[in-house]
Amino acid sequence: MSSPGDKLWGGRFSGRVDPQIERFTCSFPFDRRLALDDLVGSLAHARMLAERGILGPADGRAVLEGLAGLIDDVESGELEVDGVDEDIHSWIERSLSERIGDPAKRLHTARSRNDQVGTALRLFARRQVSGLQAELVALGSVLLERASEHLDTVLPGYTHLQRGQPVSLAHHLLAHFWAIEADGRRLIRCHEAAGTSPLGAGALAGTPHPIDPERSTELLGFSRTFANSMFAVADRDYVVELSFTCSLLLVHLSRWAEEIVLWTSSEFGFAKLSDAIAKGSSIMPQKRNPEPAEILRGKAGRGLGDLVAHLVQLKGLPLTYNSDLQEDKEALFDVVDTANGSLATSRVLASGLLFDPDAMRQALYGSFVTATDLADWLVVRGVPFRSAHEQTGLAVKKAEELESELWELPLEALQECVPLADESVYEVLAPEKSLRAHRSAGGPAPERVREQLERARGQLDELTAWCELQTEPPVLSLHRDGKLLEDLPA
Amino acid sequence: MSSPGDKLWGGRFSGRVDPQIERFTCSFPFDRRLALDDLVGSLAHARMLAERGILGPADGRAVLEGLAGLIDDVESGELEVDGVDEDIHSWIERSLSERIGDPAKRLHTARSRNDQVGTALRLFARRQVSGLQAELVALGSVLLERASEHLDTVLPGYTHLQRGQPVSLAHHLLAHFWAIEADGRRLIRCHEAAGTSPLGAGALAGTPHPIDPERSTELLGFSRTFANSMFAVADRDYVVELSFTCSLLLVHLSRWAEEIVLWTSSEFGFAKLSDAIAKGSSIMPQKRNPEPAEILRGKAGRGLGDLVAHLVQLKGLPLTYNSDLQEDKEALFDVVDTANGSLATSRVLASGLLFDPDAMRQALYGSFVTATDLADWLVVRGVPFRSAHEQTGLAVKKAEELESELWELPLEALQECVPLADESVYEVLAPEKSLRAHRSAGGPAPERVREQLERARGQLDELTAWCELQTEPPVLSLHRDGKLLEDLPA
Amino acid sequence: MSSPGDKLWGGRFSGRVDPQIERFTCSFPFDRRLALDDLVGSLAHARMLAERGILGPADGRAVLEGLAGLIDDVESGELEVDGVDEDIHSWIERSLSERIGDPAKRLHTARSRNDQVGTALRLFARRQVSGLQAELVALGSVLLERASEHLDTVLPGYTHLQRGQPVSLAHHLLAHFWAIEADGRRLIRCHEAAGTSPLGAGALAGTPHPIDPERSTELLGFSRTFANSMFAVADRDYVVELSFTCSLLLVHLSRWAEEIVLWTSSEFGFAKLSDAIAKGSSIMPQKRNPEPAEILRGKAGRGLGDLVAHLVQLKGLPLTYNSDLQEDKEALFDVVDTANGSLATSRVLASGLLFDPDAMRQALYGSFVTATDLADWLVVRGVPFRSAHEQTGLAVKKAEELESELWELPLEALQECVPLADESVYEVLAPEKSLRAHRSAGGPAPERVREQLERARGQLDELTAWCELQTEPPVLSLHRDGKLLEDLPA
Amino acid sequence: MSSPGDKLWGGRFSGRVDPQIERFTCSFPFDRRLALDDLVGSLAHARMLAERGILGPADGRAVLEGLAGLIDDVESGELEVDGVDEDIHSWIERSLSERIGDPAKRLHTARSRNDQVGTALRLFARRQVSGLQAELVALGSVLLERASEHLDTVLPGYTHLQRGQPVSLAHHLLAHFWAIEADGRRLIRCHEAAGTSPLGAGALAGTPHPIDPERSTELLGFSRTFANSMFAVADRDYVVELSFTCSLLLVHLSRWAEEIVLWTSSEFGFAKLSDAIAKGSSIMPQKRNPEPAEILRGKAGRGLGDLVAHLVQLKGLPLTYNSDLQEDKEALFDVVDTANGSLATSRVLASGLLFDPDAMRQALYGSFVTATDLADWLVVRGVPFRSAHEQTGLAVKKAEELESELWELPLEALQECVPLADESVYEVLAPEKSLRAHRSAGGPAPERVREQLERARGQLDELTAWCELQTEPPVLSLHRDGKLLEDLPA
Repeated sequence: MSSPGDKLWGGRFSGRVDPQIERFTCSFPFDRRLALDDLVGSLAHARMLAERGILGPADGRAVLEGLAGLIDDVESGELEVDGVDEDIHSWIERSLSERIGDPAKRLHTARSRNDQVGTALRLFARRQVSGLQAELVALGSVLLERASEHLDTVLPGYTHLQRGQPVSLAHHLLAHFWAIEADGRRLIRCHEAAGTSPLGAGALAGTPHPIDPERSTELLGFSRTFANSMFAVADRDYVVELSFTCSLLLVHLSRWAEEIVLWTSSEFGFAKLSDAIAKGSSIMPQKRNPEPAEILRGKAGRGLGDLVAHLVQLKGLPLTYNSDLQEDKEALFDVVDTANGSLATSRVLASGLLFDPDAMRQALYGSFVTATDLADWLVVRGVPFRSAHEQTGLAVKKAEELESELWELPLEALQECVPLADESVYEVLAPEKSLRAHRSAGGPAPERVREQLERARGQLDELTAWCELQTEPPVLSLHRDGKLLEDLPA
Repeated sequence: MSSPGDKLWGGRFSGRVDPQIERFTCSFPFDRRLALDDLVGSLAHARMLAERGILGPADGRAVLEGLAGLIDDVESGELEVDGVDEDIHSWIERSLSERIGDPAKRLHTARSRNDQVGTALRLFARRQVSGLQAELVALGSVLLERASEHLDTVLPGYTHLQRGQPVSLAHHLLAHFWAIEADGRRLIRCHEAAGTSPLGAGALAGTPHPIDPERSTELLGFSRTFANSMFAVADRDYVVELSFTCSLLLVHLSRWAEEIVLWTSSEFGFAKLSDAIAKGSSIMPQKRNPEPAEILRGKAGRGLGDLVAHLVQLKGLPLTYNSDLQEDKEALFDVVDTANGSLATSRVLASGLLFDPDAMRQALYGSFVTATDLADWLVVRGVPFRSAHEQTGLAVKKAEELESELWELPLEALQECVPLADESVYEVLAPEKSLRAHRSAGGPAPERVREQLERARGQLDELTAWCELQTEPPVLSLHRDGKLLEDLPA
Repeated sequence: MSSPGDKLWGGRFSGRVDPQIERFTCSFPFDRRLALDDLVGSLAHARMLAERGILGPADGRAVLEGLAGLIDDVESGELEVDGVDEDIHSWIERSLSERIGDPAKRLHTARSRNDQVGTALRLFARRQVSGLQAELVALGSVLLERASEHLDTVLPGYTHLQRGQPVSLAHHLLAHFWAIEADGRRLIRCHEAAGTSPLGAGALAGTPHPIDPERSTELLGFSRTFANSMFAVADRDYVVELSFTCSLLLVHLSRWAEEIVLWTSSEFGFAKLSDAIAKGSSIMPQKRNPEPAEILRGKAGRGLGDLVAHLVQLKGLPLTYNSDLQEDKEALFDVVDTANGSLATSRVLASGLLFDPDAMRQALYGSFVTATDLADWLVVRGVPFRSAHEQTGLAVKKAEELESELWELPLEALQECVPLADESVYEVLAPEKSLRAHRSAGGPAPERVREQLERARGQLDELTAWCELQTEPPVLSLHRDGKLLEDLPA
Repeated sequence: MSSPGDKLWGGRFSGRVDPQIERFTCSFPFDRRLALDDLVGSLAHARMLAERGILGPADGRAVLEGLAGLIDDVESGELEVDGVDEDIHSWIERSLSERIGDPAKRLHTARSRNDQVGTALRLFARRQVSGLQAELVALGSVLLERASEHLDTVLPGYTHLQRGQPVSLAHHLLAHFWAIEADGRRLIRCHEAAGTSPLGAGALAGTPHPIDPERSTELLGFSRTFANSMFAVADRDYVVELSFTCSLLLVHLSRWAEEIVLWTSSEFGFAKLSDAIAKGSSIMPQKRNPEPAEILRGKAGRGLGDLVAHLVQLKGLPLTYNSDLQEDKEALFDVVDTANGSLATSRVLASGLLFDPDAMRQALYGSFVTATDLADWLVVRGVPFRSAHEQTGLAVKKAEELESELWELPLEALQECVPLADESVYEVLAPEKSLRAHRSAGGPAPERVREQLERARGQLDELTAWCELQTEPPVLSLHRDGKLLEDLPA
């Protein structure tokens, strides 16, 4: 053994952990956020131990009542989750010991920090998913509401940020609805992914004690029990999936944010920011910067950063638990909080935008957004595709020369380019009429959008129903209902 | 209008696109990989148009037969997907025109490149998912087979890369199985995500033609039809989800790769690389570098890079289609190919590893991997947790002093530390016995692992069954069955 | 040793490498791009060996002439870098052997693939940096040229995509110039970072042969010699730095691209795309999509993906060389090619934009972009800041009511809000006058921009001068000059 | 204007900002960390304004003394940076107003939040770089110290985690030194990158006031003044570069961490963790988990996440300032703090590792780590390369059969394979002798490592010297020296 010790670093033989190492490895400043989840996980473990007689009646009662008391006091705020503990698990052990003494130690029978932390983190993830889903539903609700007001508000749909074809504002807002609806469905899958109980996996190899992991699963409200104790403590897919789902959601919201920035610019002028969502400038009372939308757009970077952190941390880790995984918590907290705040902000923005239908309508002029409709009109009348396009091109050129809209071209001028043209062609040339003509399924015609709204409401109802199904873990309900000690072996 | 043109850059008035711009925007060198998918999408579109009478009988027959011919010739290799075209869509249009002349143009009725490319890319994604799933099933199969050979091969399970508790090699291999099994379930969801047909969304606003998007969906074998034409052309979630699923899979494989690197090191020596999976060194015939495993580990970075590219490209894009999306193809191709090759390599590695049970068993010595079992033995016998741990600590210390294993300590020596100890304690101290004692659900005891193997086989069978359910798009079957022109309006 | 072999995977005892493993580990399909770099590295090594007498006169001559011949033939295209070799190093060894027989093997004296590949990759990186710099200088040149045409073209400068204060188009274009100028300086540092010669580090531990690594460094034109043989083969900072520099450059270009997309929208109308940089639409001749700019914007995602790949691959790798590093090549090639093409495209775009000064000027109306100037005018006249702002607010409100610009308000109307106002205030209210008044250093006043242009030209000249300094590796010049065999020991 | 207001979201006309928007946009909870930097930036601005007479004598004195007082009180902790302010700039304005009343408002003459925040963030970045450099130097110091103890401690150098050739522990530790030395040089460039003063750029267009940006630069200790006001407020390269430098540093430390994890495993056993850097287990007193090293390895993911966040946030942003940039602060704080803590931890780990030279030496056995030396010995003696390798292969095989080391083979046994062998060959076969023979420049021979140590110390001295050169901004020194009000116009 080499003898390193010089004065500077000689501290290494003191037998005490270096303060820098303490600071660096201590997770309590952040993992105390898991206090209730870890307490609930412990409660389920204790109840299972008591049911199986692994905890004797007296110890079982002491531990269960002690944990329940901690839950109540943390919830009420009477007990602060604070101290010099190394992590939340130590804090719970210490707090429980202070209340019930020696039996507190029995709680750790047939359990290790490795399955304990997985249990708490999964409970946390599920709670967060429920909260995110509720925020998402609220945003979806506002989008549907705003859409339902604007089935006949016409504006150009864009490709390449170039005006393309007339659509309705309702149709446009619904496009964003469908983006987040997909996020809502992914959130449900995150809930499922987090629903495998690792409790009973121990440090990595289960335990010789006659535990009942299925019963723990049931008490926690999880969907299924781990299949392999080593995978149970090494697996963090549920963290990564939630992180990914939040990231993609944030990217979707960044697209919505971008449009708010564009629409509230002087150049577009499609919307104004209400007082609730803008900040004034003392010198220019008319000035309103879309700062919330810009920050919202920037959050996509933050979410993506968290996702990357998670995946990088897992890369190349051998089985089973490694302390690299301790790092996953802060990134998970951050991405979930970011998604939550961004959903709420998106909702308030969607609600507070003052649309300007006149400006939108104005944008339909000058860009020949119905040229395709003229060509389609000809194709329907049997004109070969190629000639239809050629004639339309001529008509656009003519309109440009006359500084006229296509639908304002006198019939004879139109006929110079499009010999077949008659009065009926004007039925498809005006933007509103074009809109109404685009009545293929999923298209912008008001009758189609009305159907689409129905479909959207149905999907939203499903997400709402899912939210309402989410309940507290059964073991917590036992406690709420005063039945925590019922039906235990004497 | 400012007048820029000096000699240097004066080319800008030539009316011809700058060659650099041509090169930069041309997607044919990579999107030609979508040739068959785009042809199938076109075939479905044409058949729907013909069914609805939007394509007349003669045109319909010409277009359908023309497309079917192209499919046959591309599949047989008779026709090379090559040329100076700008993209695969242009290539198809040109190739079809060369075969059937003017009716080729009619194919574009009620369709745009925006819904066309989405259709092709979704067909491609689904095909890839099926291929990936098959590779994954093959890897899972090998893992189960290797595991089934090693239920009684004992080695230490590790946490923090420190020897922890005895497990079996079967249990260890199965941990990796469950990681990829979760990937397999995610792949199925990618298939679902890609299963929304965008065909009929047009450029962004549907069409005035009386198309039947539901019928297109059916002909393509998609699961549902787009709800909103704008979202249909702007949505790339299916690309991102597949990219994410591949990335996470690659991270899982990097953990497997890391263990191969560790296990084949001289220090571990748990496995040797068979000739099939190592490369020799001319100078040192005994030398075998785990290069395939290292490259496999590195692929996780590549996959993550592709995922990041996708998410960044979408960030802040306004609706609807923007050419940034053109960039998604190469990254998707890359991540899918990387995942495919990595799965195959993982399988060959799993198959070619020559495990060394003796070395594994040897690693159980010297680290007191059954100390926890001693404590558990005491707890079961009513010794308070705290004392149990204290006594175990003393026993470990004693064993260290005597340079003995715990299970080799003479009973009297053991009793000095652990007064309760009797002969029966040796039942839990030897690694193999400890293994057998850890028979809680999901634990490493052979009887549990046997159950686990059953559960695993069941899951694998489900994935296999899913693979077998995947079929060609119905419109392609129509063609294969010679029914492409049947039941069309006269 | 366990006996795995069942029929399925029994192939593992064949003694032949599995074809999947061959494919997966074979790097020749991509690393053949390093052919010339590896040949030059080999040439330097051979010359050093010959100078030191480690290669005898006959062998030395054979090897040097053989390598020089390969270089000539690869450059001329006479020899294709193709075959079934495993990597470019094997190809070179084989090709050289085919030409000169046994002495070819002597080339590997005192060298290993580990220092060989590092040498080739560093030479490649340096060549690429020179090429990128030249492209960057060309883009900078066009930006300066376009800027110099527009010192008096006034448009609003934006914050939050809201019109802020008047600036000139020259000033705006120069902002982008400075972004890439910083990239140019970073490129030089990449060149320096790649300039440490690893040749002589061997596999990881140097060599007992009396080599002269300093001489190799000199022959290769590198700046310094590795300090530590282990670090030399494990270090990939030069790859990561170049990847980062390209990534940040691509992010800068994405900002430029975003503005092109905005400016060529109907809403902004600040610029049109010349024929050279847009693609027309057959049906709408007036339609021009900024596709190249959108793709350019999307390339930022691709670059960032490559950077992430590099960093992830290095994470957690133990010393020294690991095959994960094989993966760095494709990502490096990709990011460098992407940056190159994006620079060239940016240049062509900058050159081909047809600015519309009238539209820019028009955008100065209606947003009170000189309100701050009014407040500043009052502050200069001693009006307390708070009152100045209050009065300006009133004036803006008045102008809004009268639907007037600030500078069009009649003096008496202005004085109602701003009692101090006299005719001189109009000197600062009109946008052009405001522009001229903003003559603080680095500001938009034409006289300042003229100075800025000078400063910019100076910086560009420095980059150009740097490009001109870059030369071929000295050992290659020896060959070009016919001196490859001069001054060798007899 | 559409009339949205229903009951639910009708709050949008209240004229008050929605609380969610307040929360979402408020940066004070994090940007208050910039308090001192922003105060110093303000002090420089005020001093420049006073020097130029833009602030009159009385106002100037009031503002300068007010700011200086705030600095003192914040530094002493007397004044807490707390409150309900929106951002740190508002807090400063409010705090100053509370102290000096109206003149506080004059501070904002010729300045905007856009150049203000850039100034503060750059000052912060520079301070952080100095702190990071000091930590890095401390780590480098320990590495050199530990290395200097182990020039003759021999262990295998690894490639592919396979034992390769003998190196010394000193050489190995120095490889890590050079990695961070490169980081140190990059840190200096980050300092330079942050050294462009943006003060005077205003909101985006400079100012009509006769300010002196060069003087502000000087007072702040920056290296140069912005060239373009628009770029000055839009540029965040200095943030990204610092983030990248920290990320790459963290990747380097993850490689060091990986080796600590490997070396302290039972399998390697090259080092033990001293009490100061490990955490015991109550049950297994001999157990020491390398948790700090694992967390250190995981930090690479966190750093990379922050870097990605920065780059994503900048992607596609039009000029000039956009509120997305507000998001850059937390990620910058995080990456800098992470790097700081990781450097300190790495140092403590480097210091606390108890190396086990015997275990290292033991690892040289059984892997024929000097086989290459035998081949080299033959090559030097004129044996053709191919035969040399062949003979060496035979010798290795023979040694394997005899379960002997190469250097323990009897001469006659060796001569059976290597006819030329004589007693002198043993000079290169024993690991220590091989080590000494590898005396090429940069190699592991002790004499070379001694030189390397000198070179390393020189580099470290340069970094140290750089640290010592860093001083407080001159304007702060003026205040410290009581000269803040000197030499101002009367």
